[in-house]
Amino acid sequence: MFFGKCKMDMCDRTKNTNVRFSLPAVCVVWQTAMIILFGVFIRYDEESDPHWLEHKKLNNISSDIENDFYFRYPSFQDVHVMIFVGFGFLMTFLKRYSFGGVGFNFLIAAFGLQWALLMQGWFHSLDYTDGKIKIGIENLINADFCVAGCLIAYGALLGKVSPVQLMVLTLFGITLFAVEEYIILNLIHARDAGGSMVIHTFGAYYGLSISWMLYRPNLDQSSRLQGSVYHSDVFATIGTLFLWMFWPSFNSAITDHGDGQHRAVINTYLALASTVLTTVAMSSLFQKHGKLDMVHVQNSTLAGGVAVGTAAEFMLMPYGSLIVGFCCGVISTLGYIYISPFLEKYMKVQDTCGVHNLHAMPGVIGGIVGAITAAAASESVYGHEGLVKTFDFEGAFEKMEPTTQGGHQAGGLCVALIFGIGGGMIVGAILRLPIWGDPADDNCFDDETYWEVPEDEEIFDSSIY
Amino acid sequence: MFFGKCKMDMCDRTKNTNVRFSLPAVCVVWQTAMIILFGVFIRYDEESDPHWLEHKKLNNISSDIENDFYFRYPSFQDVHVMIFVGFGFLMTFLKRYSFGGVGFNFLIAAFGLQWALLMQGWFHSLDYTDGKIKIGIENLINADFCVAGCLIAYGALLGKVSPVQLMVLTLFGITLFAVEEYIILNLIHARDAGGSMVIHTFGAYYGLSISWMLYRPNLDQSSRLQGSVYHSDVFATIGTLFLWMFWPSFNSAITDHGDGQHRAVINTYLALASTVLTTVAMSSLFQKHGKLDMVHVQNSTLAGGVAVGTAAEFMLMPYGSLIVGFCCGVISTLGYIYISPFLEKYMKVQDTCGVHNLHAMPGVIGGIVGAITAAAASESVYGHEGLVKTFDFEGAFEKMEPTTQGGHQAGGLCVALIFGIGGGMIVGAILRLPIWGDPADDNCFDDETYWEVPEDEEIFDSSIY
Amino acid sequence: MFFGKCKMDMCDRTKNTNVRFSLPAVCVVWQTAMIILFGVFIRYDEESDPHWLEHKKLNNISSDIENDFYFRYPSFQDVHVMIFVGFGFLMTFLKRYSFGGVGFNFLIAAFGLQWALLMQGWFHSLDYTDGKIKIGIENLINADFCVAGCLIAYGALLGKVSPVQLMVLTLFGITLFAVEEYIILNLIHARDAGGSMVIHTFGAYYGLSISWMLYRPNLDQSSRLQGSVYHSDVFATIGTLFLWMFWPSFNSAITDHGDGQHRAVINTYLALASTVLTTVAMSSLFQKHGKLDMVHVQNSTLAGGVAVGTAAEFMLMPYGSLIVGFCCGVISTLGYIYISPFLEKYMKVQDTCGVHNLHAMPGVIGGIVGAITAAAASESVYGHEGLVKTFDFEGAFEKMEPTTQGGHQAGGLCVALIFGIGGGMIVGAILRLPIWGDPADDNCFDDETYWEVPEDEEIFDSSIY
Repeated sequence: MFFGKCKMDMCDRTKNTNVRFSLPAVCVVWQTAMIILFGVFIRYDEESDPHWLEHKKLNNISSDIENDFYFRYPSFQDVHVMIFVGFGFLMTFLKRYSFGGVGFNFLIAAFGLQWALLMQGWFHSLDYTDGKIKIGIENLINADFCVAGCLIAYGALLGKVSPVQLMVLTLFGITLFAVEEYIILNLIHARDAGGSMVIHTFGAYYGLSISWMLYRPNLDQSSRLQGSVYHSDVFATIGTLFLWMFWPSFNSAITDHGDGQHRAVINTYLALASTVLTTVAMSSLFQKHGKLDMVHVQNSTLAGGVAVGTAAEFMLMPYGSLIVGFCCGVISTLGYIYISPFLEKYMKVQDTCGVHNLHAMPGVIGGIVGAITAAAASESVYGHEGLVKTFDFEGAFEKMEPTTQGGHQAGGLCVALIFGIGGGMIVGAILRLPIWGDPADDNCFDDETYWEVPEDEEIFDSSIY
Repeated sequence: MFFGKCKMDMCDRTKNTNVRFSLPAVCVVWQTAMIILFGVFIRYDEESDPHWLEHKKLNNISSDIENDFYFRYPSFQDVHVMIFVGFGFLMTFLKRYSFGGVGFNFLIAAFGLQWALLMQGWFHSLDYTDGKIKIGIENLINADFCVAGCLIAYGALLGKVSPVQLMVLTLFGITLFAVEEYIILNLIHARDAGGSMVIHTFGAYYGLSISWMLYRPNLDQSSRLQGSVYHSDVFATIGTLFLWMFWPSFNSAITDHGDGQHRAVINTYLALASTVLTTVAMSSLFQKHGKLDMVHVQNSTLAGGVAVGTAAEFMLMPYGSLIVGFCCGVISTLGYIYISPFLEKYMKVQDTCGVHNLHAMPGVIGGIVGAITAAAASESVYGHEGLVKTFDFEGAFEKMEPTTQGGHQAGGLCVALIFGIGGGMIVGAILRLPIWGDPADDNCFDDETYWEVPEDEEIFDSSIY
Repeated sequence: MFFGKCKMDMCDRTKNTNVRFSLPAVCVVWQTAMIILFGVFIRYDEESDPHWLEHKKLNNISSDIENDFYFRYPSFQDVHVMIFVGFGFLMTFLKRYSFGGVGFNFLIAAFGLQWALLMQGWFHSLDYTDGKIKIGIENLINADFCVAGCLIAYGALLGKVSPVQLMVLTLFGITLFAVEEYIILNLIHARDAGGSMVIHTFGAYYGLSISWMLYRPNLDQSSRLQGSVYHSDVFATIGTLFLWMFWPSFNSAITDHGDGQHRAVINTYLALASTVLTTVAMSSLFQKHGKLDMVHVQNSTLAGGVAVGTAAEFMLMPYGSLIVGFCCGVISTLGYIYISPFLEKYMKVQDTCGVHNLHAMPGVIGGIVGAITAAAASESVYGHEGLVKTFDFEGAFEKMEPTTQGGHQAGGLCVALIFGIGGGMIVGAILRLPIWGDPADDNCFDDETYWEVPEDEEIFDSSIY
């Protein structure tokens, strides 16, 4: 049956998915460029340089344990697991695209983090005395964060693009991210510790816009490969759980030492717990026979973590975190049931992993929650010093009021939306060029296209490739 | 064949497994209750509140690194992984109940940790000046611990109960746990850092008693679905390994700063290593042809971690840890071979995961080892200050002797047994009510009952559901 | 078909793979020996003993957070995950040897770490005042490191040896490791934080030499079981990713507090990222149609972590790390394509996991990179104190020059090679004795031999076992 189908398709197929030269060329040339740029620009910062011993003495630092490494390394490793295992395995749910899900995730992240160290470094860690970017553990965390934006975008495109397109998506995605982040955090002075706006809103709309630009009207030709099998769903659950468990580390990784990290963990932990219950409730309520849908459990349970990203370091209060999680579980699950089909049918947005429900909507909610929580801040709740430290009311922003800060937060959300949608449309236009080796419509969601797949489990005849 | 079988069963089947209204109702109502109770009672403690800056000054704390967060957060995250991935994946071993294993584990834990924060908070973290529970990282760890008890109970019931029953089991389990823990730790003044008594003994007997109350004489109608397939066994190994690797963090997560955490890690690491060798030895020796049984490797290798739980922070000595591990590997493996079939056949206890071998017996052993180690403590081994700190001989217990402490430890073990067995019988009686949507005997161990299962791998006809 | 084949083989088969008495005997006797030796020799060190309170006062240590536990525990847990999940799951890639891959890995590691605590303890942690080995967190890390050498050796032998042989391999492997390590680190005074020489070069050549001694000319009789299936490849990716993500912890786990750990993390993170891109490039370029090979993505992406092991704590510079990673991705992938088939065909080395490409070559490169980086060290780059601390130019080595250090590093590499090759040949000769229960040639790579495999997925008739 499939053989016949494929033979028939051959007539229509004009796509060349052979990336034998384009993919190695892109990888080698860009990696070489990284080496040169790192040689020119990147150096160790004072806490990872052997002169740390002198730095300690000069600054009266009493112990090595005061090195920022020990404040942030456990969180960094958790974030690292989220990027590579969390996002990677979450994308293994398709029956025949597990290699592409976890493998291309790996490729995007490995390239993206290098380019992010440079792009974010120029904006945030440039030492003007010698023109070098000085990196330490916080830069590594931020690079992983930056990569997360591109991986979210990949979620919308999973199975429909070539690895070369993904490298291009990452190059531009990281660049846009760094600019957007600089505008939101430094120019607008919005706070966004867990990246509800900077990472999730931007990343999701960036991917959705690209998906809209790359709309495939005949994608149903691959419908036999859409959906999961039993064990691919279990693999995806590995991704879900590592994202869910380590999200407190994500939202607290770059917050203030001490109470800042501590509070961000508590808020995220609670929001995520609450989301699980409402996701299960909605999933059961809106399905025939009350059976749970693994897609919801795999994805919507994470929405609470996205939505407390901005406010996790604020005085959201434990019950506030639960409320945010409650709402996001409901909205995200209903998104999978009602909004995703609507977007695909009427808006021409094909969103493989449903990033609109997991990242876009919760990200926007997170931005709004952050704005409200910031606007409601007061010295009575934070204490004077606490307020200054939490919102970084220093330097040019010394006299800023919480209500103004709330407005700035809202402004930051708008910037993230504009960069996501606008950037996605431009990059989508580039990715429509017929040179990237993307698959034909009946060839999507199939690891055969870009991977050597072990022979004895090949379901479909591959003689025509 | 199966279709015929199922049609025939329809005549007998009176069970309604549709939880479309009961499950959402329980989740939404209880989550709403959590929000209200958190709003009334739960606040940040002084280390996660922005007033930390003032607290630091008042208490002459020199650095943010002294915040308890940095002592405990790495251990917390390891414990978190054990709860969600460790317990979750350990329960994916059945051929068609992997969704239920990892998914309901997720649901129980997400609800349980919220309720545990409240229950444990009222007993241990209530600030009497304002009537609020003040939470920090240690509360999150304890909430995860508390949840572990219910997950152990779930292990005995895996595949035989509905998600609504599991929510009820969790509600009562957490409540009983908090009371039992308060009696054992505060009133009796037993020490139990790793929870051999408080968590494992209680949780296992709680689950076994419920299983006894819910005895299914015709469970062999589901025998086609009992047992594993090749890849489900590999999935379960993920759970095993994450439990095994992170057990040192479990047993040290809430022990004393400094040497207490350090020593608990060493003891647990050694006990677990020793258990692996004797488990392999017994598994090979008692099987035909000397072949290893994955059930033993997945479960009995963990028994050493359970059994050093109480004594991990004491001067058990490295060789003592090895001895405990040695014995538990033997006993737990023999339990799977001889005791579990006996319990099922003669005692009417159906124990899906064998929690009697992994948690109940090793937990009791752990309680006894703890009592002996405590009774044998002396100032010459611990030093005066070390003895006081390790056993918390302060306040009302200032003049307590190690030998007396040993007696109190034994008393604690009895309380855990009584609460586990008694509580389980009461909750089991409640769960026998015909309103919870539990599966029929021939319908157990089957994800079809409560989950949308991907179509193309459906082994059995599902038209009758 | 298989039934016929197996019946035919029965005539030829003289191997007895029943380990019902040898395996339990080895496990129980050796574990008992461990208990006795631990009883005689192993005690807690001053940081894990209750006398820590007095130690703190005597040494003016201001806080419990100065306990080495808090500097190293997060890294330890990451290393622990690499040993058990990383190595374990990397070896699940074969279609019918996943139990043996992850299960025997577990057994080797659990025994090896105990023996390593003793062997390394006698060389490095012996307290001459009382003749006891004092252990703390750093000993646990080193024991895990020591085990890694044996697990690498197992990679070369995967599927071709019995568990009893693996226990023997481990006993001798750990012993050789401890001697070799003492010579390289203490006598020669080479530095090797991440173990490029001590762990990877030694372990790989140890395994390859054993494999050469155990050469099976008729291994193609098991060719039906060589290679992966779709989901076993996804399982192996779990191993890959946990190794890849936590390698920065591996290379920094025992480096100097402060900048040393910090820098080792940055260097490893960057080298690994670079390796991914060149691995993908080479894999695509050298395959028909440019399709990626999962074997390369699973293994070669890790080569960069091996190769920066020695130099990770030095001033390799960020671009230097990228260059090392770049080269290793290329060499390792080409090794899988060209060198492994050559070794098997002409050198009689059957290397199941390709440890020659992942550990041997990158390990040697790592040794060379370390020697060069050490020889190029200068006070202008490190500062005087930084140079002394990084290279430990103290005591007998106070007047050592970086150039001399470079020579010593090269000497260390030679010692690792000699111990690996020589030790492997001796142990290989022992393992050729016909008493160990190893499988027949047509019986390799098959879990049926040593495991109870769930019935319903048995592909091959097992009636003859």
